[in-house]
Amino acid sequence: MEATRTLAKFIVEHRYGDIPGEVRHEAARSILNWVGCAVGGSRHDTVERALAALSGFSGPREATVLGRGDRLDVMLAALMNGITSHTFDFDDTHLRTVIHPSGPVASAILALAERKPVPGEDFLHAFILGVEAECRIGNAVYPEHYDVGWHITGTAGVFGAAAAAGRLLDLNEQQMVWALGIAATQSSGLREMFGTMCKPFHPGNAARNGLLAALLAQRDFTSSGHSIEAKRGFANVLSTAFKPGEITVRLGETWEISLNTYKPFACGIVEHPIIDGCIQLRNEHQIEADDVESVALRVHPLVLELTGRRAPQAGLEGKFSVFHSAAVGLIHGAAGEAQYSDAVVRDARIMSLRDKVVAEVDRTVHEDQAHIAIRLKDGRTLEKFVEHAVGSIDRPMSDADLEAKFRGLAAGILTGTESGKLIGLCWDVAKLRDAGEVARASVPSGAARRRSRSRARA
Amino acid sequence: MEATRTLAKFIVEHRYGDIPGEVRHEAARSILNWVGCAVGGSRHDTVERALAALSGFSGPREATVLGRGDRLDVMLAALMNGITSHTFDFDDTHLRTVIHPSGPVASAILALAERKPVPGEDFLHAFILGVEAECRIGNAVYPEHYDVGWHITGTAGVFGAAAAAGRLLDLNEQQMVWALGIAATQSSGLREMFGTMCKPFHPGNAARNGLLAALLAQRDFTSSGHSIEAKRGFANVLSTAFKPGEITVRLGETWEISLNTYKPFACGIVEHPIIDGCIQLRNEHQIEADDVESVALRVHPLVLELTGRRAPQAGLEGKFSVFHSAAVGLIHGAAGEAQYSDAVVRDARIMSLRDKVVAEVDRTVHEDQAHIAIRLKDGRTLEKFVEHAVGSIDRPMSDADLEAKFRGLAAGILTGTESGKLIGLCWDVAKLRDAGEVARASVPSGAARRRSRSRARA
Repeated sequence: MEATRTLAKFIVEHRYGDIPGEVRHEAARSILNWVGCAVGGSRHDTVERALAALSGFSGPREATVLGRGDRLDVMLAALMNGITSHTFDFDDTHLRTVIHPSGPVASAILALAERKPVPGEDFLHAFILGVEAECRIGNAVYPEHYDVGWHITGTAGVFGAAAAAGRLLDLNEQQMVWALGIAATQSSGLREMFGTMCKPFHPGNAARNGLLAALLAQRDFTSSGHSIEAKRGFANVLSTAFKPGEITVRLGETWEISLNTYKPFACGIVEHPIIDGCIQLRNEHQIEADDVESVALRVHPLVLELTGRRAPQAGLEGKFSVFHSAAVGLIHGAAGEAQYSDAVVRDARIMSLRDKVVAEVDRTVHEDQAHIAIRLKDGRTLEKFVEHAVGSIDRPMSDADLEAKFRGLAAGILTGTESGKLIGLCWDVAKLRDAGEVARASVPSGAARRRSRSRARA
Repeated sequence: MEATRTLAKFIVEHRYGDIPGEVRHEAARSILNWVGCAVGGSRHDTVERALAALSGFSGPREATVLGRGDRLDVMLAALMNGITSHTFDFDDTHLRTVIHPSGPVASAILALAERKPVPGEDFLHAFILGVEAECRIGNAVYPEHYDVGWHITGTAGVFGAAAAAGRLLDLNEQQMVWALGIAATQSSGLREMFGTMCKPFHPGNAARNGLLAALLAQRDFTSSGHSIEAKRGFANVLSTAFKPGEITVRLGETWEISLNTYKPFACGIVEHPIIDGCIQLRNEHQIEADDVESVALRVHPLVLELTGRRAPQAGLEGKFSVFHSAAVGLIHGAAGEAQYSDAVVRDARIMSLRDKVVAEVDRTVHEDQAHIAIRLKDGRTLEKFVEHAVGSIDRPMSDADLEAKFRGLAAGILTGTESGKLIGLCWDVAKLRDAGEVARASVPSGAARRRSRSRARA
């Protein structure tokens, strides 16, 4: 039962050509979604504070903070991009483990790719392998590990970052075993931090430390040969159950990245079927807010438990109000980060419609389902039953949906032309001669100009 | 039960003048011992590999790698000094928790003191407070936390580093709460790594990450307000038992640094009473190896369980042979790192005496006791019962013992004059205008010359 070595050997020996086309495409979708989230989060206070604290300690400024003019050494850039991409909690989800898989892995290797140019194929391959390691290790300890109190995106993410970075650094099998071990002994991140800046810190820190693990292993810095499965290894110490077969069985035959999902809406997943249905009804019937008499929702019990706030006052509170979420779905036809600003939460039209929404628990409604009945002032009632919310495995966001989400996140940071170019680079990442182009194209031209002016002065 | 806030408030508000003189002296002894271990370990492969991997990523090279010419940014220097000081497993021990307390704390703040000069009093104060935080948090979860499989020097050390660095950075109470939280969510280090380079990596990584926590908190990067005691906080997630009173009761009245101990011998602590007794007999009776007919030991059961190797072949194996340890005690009158080299383990005189040693388990002998009976060829038998081994709480190493240990560790790296100067700086650390002098004085003059030559060429 050599889970660690079996996984290391797989990561080192696997060939890109053996990955099916649809798996590669899912990986590109993940990269696109990740870049959008990172650019969108790049102006948040969380990253401003982290930059203020750490920028002065940067080594060679070889890597880009996505969406900004700042450059940092690769480990600090990995930290920042992991932070920004998870700041809105709008990044991808491996539903089986609730891991947000891209943040730790992509943040580590995109920074590394700016240090030494990496062909796009190698980059995408390392990304897929890193996500595979991360999610399989997650599968092997989920849900017990999560129930103990670990934020699995941090604890499993550091393995994914180490595996992907180690692959790009051409580690041999023994070095990869060591890299996974150095990752294991840094595995950390407490669920207690949810609701603080430390939540997005976790994928960033996983990226930073996974990179460190791979760099140390490259110089033969030793660790345990059995860091995952040993009596005092990762699984036994950080979990109450361990299924090693989840790591070793059918390696290279199934791909965890294929199970990745993307959030269409910038709020908790339980609200998604309701928003989805409201947007569909709005678009099918050209509903205007003034025409609405009342909105009746029948929902899964968790919806009111988690998002039952009747009168949110601030943007963040709006995320915990299914009434607000239904209202923005009907009026804006969207529920991106913009729909959860303070201004929108306090907008008179939104508030007025919000107060017309009632919700009732229906235990026959599943978690990704909802029933919506809109009664119009003209007496008509429009109904919609959502079987599977958009963004679920059963009804994934389309490529066009992902592009629209990207543009929404980048609005106000990148111009439309810049967004379009960056979207194109993400789709074509495997064809790039230098994957680092993705990072550099995320910098708004204004920021790039400011940077080159300050270089000229120096 | 606000353990986190109570501790944070204490660290922020405590006054140096309220620390008794003997506690300050114990802290200086800890610093001296730590510097000696770091200088002694500074040529080991562990740090050579880590430097080769990471030096190219260094930010501003403001801090010293103790005992070397290399300079690194403060976080990387903290990492390296934490590694070197634990490489020989010869550093200090807080016996109640088996934490090696100085490595994480001193490595963090000595590096910080080179970034911005810190008066020696403030440095020593921060050190004492950091050790207090680290060991009290350790007390609150020991032994259950250790039994789960955590290397407590890493997991508790990150708190100590954050607390001490936070104190030097003048964090306010809320920021200190956040710093402890950012530390908590990075707490890591598996006992599975024992016997690999990751063991000394743990205190280094704790220093690096504790420093990061304090720097982020200084910029109001938020974390949980209850990171230690919360349901999903450090204690409940990383341990099966939690005694919060160990953190909050009699703060400022008792001092954990007073319970610190120092190893006189570079091997497992169970062998120490035997070596101690052999050295005493040798010195009292001027025993020559050729005069010895046989050596009979009566020892605690753990001695043979852990260190029963009859015929060690390499230096490291010698550490696990009580027979070798008794032989070097009798012939060399010492058991420092030098006595566990390959050459000494294979030395004919040592091997010959080693083969004359027999050991018998005696259940009436305590763990820090041993009985030694040496039968000489002239028919005499010399006996010694060691009540408490030197280095234990009951028979601490004297200041002179610590100086001799330091000189032994620094031999071959620093000249005698350089060692003497550095020892003096450690004793007088509280009087220094700039505590960073300790770090700079640890650089051998040859290395300093080489560095200034290469600067002149640049």
